[in-house]
Amino acid sequence: MTIITLATDFGLRDEYVGVVKGAVLAVNPRAVIVDLCHGIRPQNIAEAAYMLKASWHYFPSGTVHVAVVDPGVGTDRDIIAVQCGGHLFIAPDNGLLWPLIQRYAPEEIRRVENRSLFRQPVSRTFHGRDIFAPVAGYLANGIALETVGERMNADGVTPMEERWQVRVTNGVIHGAVVSVDRFGNLVTNIALDDIEHLDPERVAVTVARRRIEGLEMTYAGHDTETPMVLPGSRNCLEIAVNCGNAAKRLRIGSGEPVTVSAS
Amino acid sequence: MTIITLATDFGLRDEYVGVVKGAVLAVNPRAVIVDLCHGIRPQNIAEAAYMLKASWHYFPSGTVHVAVVDPGVGTDRDIIAVQCGGHLFIAPDNGLLWPLIQRYAPEEIRRVENRSLFRQPVSRTFHGRDIFAPVAGYLANGIALETVGERMNADGVTPMEERWQVRVTNGVIHGAVVSVDRFGNLVTNIALDDIEHLDPERVAVTVARRRIEGLEMTYAGHDTETPMVLPGSRNCLEIAVNCGNAAKRLRIGSGEPVTVSAS
Amino acid sequence: MTIITLATDFGLRDEYVGVVKGAVLAVNPRAVIVDLCHGIRPQNIAEAAYMLKASWHYFPSGTVHVAVVDPGVGTDRDIIAVQCGGHLFIAPDNGLLWPLIQRYAPEEIRRVENRSLFRQPVSRTFHGRDIFAPVAGYLANGIALETVGERMNADGVTPMEERWQVRVTNGVIHGAVVSVDRFGNLVTNIALDDIEHLDPERVAVTVARRRIEGLEMTYAGHDTETPMVLPGSRNCLEIAVNCGNAAKRLRIGSGEPVTVSAS
Repeated sequence: MTIITLATDFGLRDEYVGVVKGAVLAVNPRAVIVDLCHGIRPQNIAEAAYMLKASWHYFPSGTVHVAVVDPGVGTDRDIIAVQCGGHLFIAPDNGLLWPLIQRYAPEEIRRVENRSLFRQPVSRTFHGRDIFAPVAGYLANGIALETVGERMNADGVTPMEERWQVRVTNGVIHGAVVSVDRFGNLVTNIALDDIEHLDPERVAVTVARRRIEGLEMTYAGHDTETPMVLPGSRNCLEIAVNCGNAAKRLRIGSGEPVTVSAS
Repeated sequence: MTIITLATDFGLRDEYVGVVKGAVLAVNPRAVIVDLCHGIRPQNIAEAAYMLKASWHYFPSGTVHVAVVDPGVGTDRDIIAVQCGGHLFIAPDNGLLWPLIQRYAPEEIRRVENRSLFRQPVSRTFHGRDIFAPVAGYLANGIALETVGERMNADGVTPMEERWQVRVTNGVIHGAVVSVDRFGNLVTNIALDDIEHLDPERVAVTVARRRIEGLEMTYAGHDTETPMVLPGSRNCLEIAVNCGNAAKRLRIGSGEPVTVSAS
Repeated sequence: MTIITLATDFGLRDEYVGVVKGAVLAVNPRAVIVDLCHGIRPQNIAEAAYMLKASWHYFPSGTVHVAVVDPGVGTDRDIIAVQCGGHLFIAPDNGLLWPLIQRYAPEEIRRVENRSLFRQPVSRTFHGRDIFAPVAGYLANGIALETVGERMNADGVTPMEERWQVRVTNGVIHGAVVSVDRFGNLVTNIALDDIEHLDPERVAVTVARRRIEGLEMTYAGHDTETPMVLPGSRNCLEIAVNCGNAAKRLRIGSGEPVTVSAS
């Protein structure tokens, strides 16, 4: 009865997610499959990466997390399986698991290359169905991680593209908006962990040439006009407007640089 | 194997619903979680309230229904748990459960205040994950309802905002459009129960200065030009256009007043 | 623990899919329900038909597939249950199962007419909840297919509307775009099976007065400007633009005729 979560950029308009579930159940009919998120913007590896880094630990130990945002599908990019914090992760080796690997020291990383675990024939366009689904199904069924392929070091994992990394320069933290949620909140990749050395009342956030001082703790605690910064649902800094849409108010979206410093 | 349904205004674009499921499964890995509806318009308590009132009884007895439309999250609004008709309901005490409580006499109502059932730490912005999910998980696992907190009377429950209530004045029933569905059908909060004293052929509905007489029984039975009224999928009055979009045709939406009288 | 898949044009904005699941679980609390696809365009029978024809076999043997795109709900159209390839299918008899029946020789076809299996009262507008859901629940629970109603021949099944059929005239294959997916890929109803007598390098596809020669095997293998044709995720011909949106580029959508010939 192991849980498998799915995070993709497939959306829910088409049958793609449904077919992935069929391919999981075909090898493991007892798997409990949970949709983590299928609304990742097409091919936006960073959005999936920081979402997953913030979400996995809410699931029970032993959960298998599958993340498929895979612009390189059908090329020779690798697929990796990572054991970390008692959970398992499977994703293309394109940076998607890099923030998680940097933050949490994984117990084990392996290349997924054992073709006997794949659905046959393997298509060139839909590895979610033909590789990720059956491999996750078998792992949730208890096969040993070493079955999937050769071990590798964390150093060998493809890093996140630099503009999506969180960096610290001269005490200033540089990050970016990585998601715009349903409510128009601008979710950054800067976790509370990243600013724990700063006094919350003296934090200054700069985004779109606007400087916002101090952290709020609730949406309702702020006026309904000016943007505020608060620790959002992901435990990351979030730029929001109380009862309003920050993305529309500030006219910015995913990719916008954000900096944090002590005021 | 108890069933837990989720109704929220979180949408499915983000990971919020997925994370709530993780937090349920973390305390109750055997829960069967069903998405009832996540397309409630942001912060539209009335839409969730009438949807839930119309939907819960299609599920098996013993189901736990979680409804989170919660503009007051992080403030001192209460959360309530209600036993009614052999089902359990958990929601913010903001009017969401009021129509259901008025219509069906609940067996028991309790404030949810036992912090030992909450996920720690409890955030200020995401009680769906930190309070509703674990409490539902424990209740589905069979803990006694009295565990969650003190008993209260139905009188103490926060009422639905008046403009969203169904009222009868001088024999005229006053309600409102509470949902616009995917097909553009205008779904009201006026249940068939509310008009059972009227002859269906002599019902007159007034909406947007237009008077529509008589109830249709199927979409296909009416012409494709003029709006009709029929008992919709929720057993509530619905204004629809056969093969068309009533919301666009009439240029109205949620909140539009609707009156029903005998013609 | 039998699996039931759901394919509808209900969308996920409303509670309709959630309520169908409730009605399944009410008769079979152990059913494992999988959303195959709810993004079928309203009343687009062909889109559902070719999606289902391409998807069912990824699920384990014994799966029950429910498909509800049903403009004739509440009229006297029939509902049919089909056993085919070790799977079961339930849908309105409006052409939806016709492509599947033509391609795979079904073992048995029956009209669904045993009202003792229906939820009572049966509404005129929501057979998904009142008929399809409980019948699927009972079938997944193991009742004999003959319980649902009288046997019928494949000849008696309502055919797909002609403009949505795949036809061959003078060696030219005539099909159509049946879906536009999230990525803007134009998915046709022409399966690889339908062109297996042609040399992939010498296939010529004509769509919207544009002639495209040869099949690509991956998205990434083509330039990012011109449309290409490749066997898509459904094993059907798909017109796509690498990292782009073919529907927007070509300004066409569902229903657009597509022809295939040897170049």
